[in-house]
Amino acid sequence: MTISASYLKEFTQQVFEKMGCPPAQAAEAADCLNQADLRGVDSHGVARLSGYIRLWEQKRLNATPQMKIVHETPSTAVLDGDLGLGLVTAPEAMRIAMNKARTAGSGWVAVKNSNHFGIAGFHAMMALEGDMVGIALTNASPLVSPTFSKSRFLGTNPIAVAIPANEEPPVVIDMATTTVANGKLEVLQRKGENAPEGWAQDKDGNPTTDPFILKKGGSMLPLGGDRQHGGHKGYCLGAMVDIFSAVLSGANYGPWVPPFVAFLDPPENPVGEGIGHFVGAFRVDAFRPADEFKAHMDNWIKTFRNAEVSEGQERVLVPGDPERELTAERLKNGIPVQEAVIEDLKTLAEKFGLTFDPK
Amino acid sequence: MTISASYLKEFTQQVFEKMGCPPAQAAEAADCLNQADLRGVDSHGVARLSGYIRLWEQKRLNATPQMKIVHETPSTAVLDGDLGLGLVTAPEAMRIAMNKARTAGSGWVAVKNSNHFGIAGFHAMMALEGDMVGIALTNASPLVSPTFSKSRFLGTNPIAVAIPANEEPPVVIDMATTTVANGKLEVLQRKGENAPEGWAQDKDGNPTTDPFILKKGGSMLPLGGDRQHGGHKGYCLGAMVDIFSAVLSGANYGPWVPPFVAFLDPPENPVGEGIGHFVGAFRVDAFRPADEFKAHMDNWIKTFRNAEVSEGQERVLVPGDPERELTAERLKNGIPVQEAVIEDLKTLAEKFGLTFDPK
Repeated sequence: MTISASYLKEFTQQVFEKMGCPPAQAAEAADCLNQADLRGVDSHGVARLSGYIRLWEQKRLNATPQMKIVHETPSTAVLDGDLGLGLVTAPEAMRIAMNKARTAGSGWVAVKNSNHFGIAGFHAMMALEGDMVGIALTNASPLVSPTFSKSRFLGTNPIAVAIPANEEPPVVIDMATTTVANGKLEVLQRKGENAPEGWAQDKDGNPTTDPFILKKGGSMLPLGGDRQHGGHKGYCLGAMVDIFSAVLSGANYGPWVPPFVAFLDPPENPVGEGIGHFVGAFRVDAFRPADEFKAHMDNWIKTFRNAEVSEGQERVLVPGDPERELTAERLKNGIPVQEAVIEDLKTLAEKFGLTFDPK
Repeated sequence: MTISASYLKEFTQQVFEKMGCPPAQAAEAADCLNQADLRGVDSHGVARLSGYIRLWEQKRLNATPQMKIVHETPSTAVLDGDLGLGLVTAPEAMRIAMNKARTAGSGWVAVKNSNHFGIAGFHAMMALEGDMVGIALTNASPLVSPTFSKSRFLGTNPIAVAIPANEEPPVVIDMATTTVANGKLEVLQRKGENAPEGWAQDKDGNPTTDPFILKKGGSMLPLGGDRQHGGHKGYCLGAMVDIFSAVLSGANYGPWVPPFVAFLDPPENPVGEGIGHFVGAFRVDAFRPADEFKAHMDNWIKTFRNAEVSEGQERVLVPGDPERELTAERLKNGIPVQEAVIEDLKTLAEKFGLTFDPK
């Protein structure tokens, strides 16, 4: 069924409050999930709410984290997330980065002892308000194999970058460093269709088109797919995200990243605390006057949007265009929510004595 | 024939000195080309020397640049390269970034009014000496089309990241944001072989396997290839590199980037000055004690190198392994140089009254 964004957001906030989150943190976490649904990243929206609750029930997530800076310089810091929601620790880290950028030009904050932070783009976009470029990275549950390997050693480790413009909307990049995000395989499972080559491999490291392969010991491939198609570059990007997020901060990296799903135990002998993020912000006027920068961004955006279209294609997009257009549509017409997710939300309502009765 | 690295470096330095470069700059520029040859990026080594000379002859390159910082904050700066060799302006920018990192934790320098800077990895690796992470980006001659477009609007826009370890060698990422670098197509041309799908498209934006397609109005594809294989993510990365390198600095971006080859005129109505780079450096101890960080990097590297190998593969690599191994081999046995490049170097020797007589 289709549910209004505001109803979903309000309900999500109530659930986080019932979990024990302070109201402001519950509101920010709900906003992050809501923006995922609005932007079309349905796998990271309200569909994930019950997953956070299960982690909290297992005491693998702290609803009232005492976050603190454990190390800093004028332009850098490490934030200990105290096992809080990544939906809460990452925005806090971004505020620290933006504050440092105000005085030092740029700010870079690595976060340890955190949990899944939702969509990376949400955090990167926070910087836009300050006429800043925002960057957000995170490591994630290991499902991806390095090139030439069958070991699941990396997450889909996304990179988000938000860049302000003037008349034009901002450029917003938000991408997994794999060929596709896990959710794309789940869509094919529901449709009963095979995956294209280059998305995944089987448990022995051979190419496969089976969309259920992750349940059979297979793994996802880094952006590019196999070696011939540049998959080693996707592996490099995933490695960079893992190291920046976790080795810099003191979180778990590689195969030690605790899984998001509560039915899998965290690996033994952890090498750090929780999962890790890395966020950054820099003022555009730390490089050139903001009006100059933004005028050229307008020109960049218009130029690329007006590039010549390939045969059989409709138009050329600028990063952020599809998500922004979908947000406008879903704000107007509501967010389509799958039946299984509705049931999930009803169960949560019952558990916490809340009403879930969308029209 | 095979020529010793030191002979090639010495000759390259002499040529740059004859062009008018101050000796220290000539030495640094020669080192950059030499490292490309040692690391196996043959397209960016001594093979490119005559290309720089041709740009200088056309007065599109200044051998005695008066570089200056035109804008700065404690952790950022813009360097005007005064149309110098990128081989000279990028190392200068990296030194500025490292100096800022010493006091502010991190330093980020955008460069305008520059030229081709050789291999990105050379500049990123400079930071390793200071126990810093180094980053280097540059835009480049437009040969790559945005997803769904047939316009050549982006360069191969590389990303390099160098990360220090303790007992293990550093992790060094140095990758074009296209499926393959242009040089890979040239290798296939010489072999008379077709390219795999996902590397390039024809002038109408259709898939092709023709390795000569760039000469027929075709274009290279961003990392991932087509939309189904994640090519829009490679487009995002190329866009980010273009914007950071040129819109932040005030250089030319997108289709306005002046081509490296001297037989193509720079585009009319430039939107900035020269080409642009973006370099960054941050101290690892701006985040956590350096010995802690480096011990975990050793563990990260050993873990990934010992990942389980896929069926039919020999071993799992860590970013930087192949280039480091090739460097050791070529330092010992010399650098293979193609006959056409030998002829090129002989012509340069004649032009400048130098001796080129490798044994």
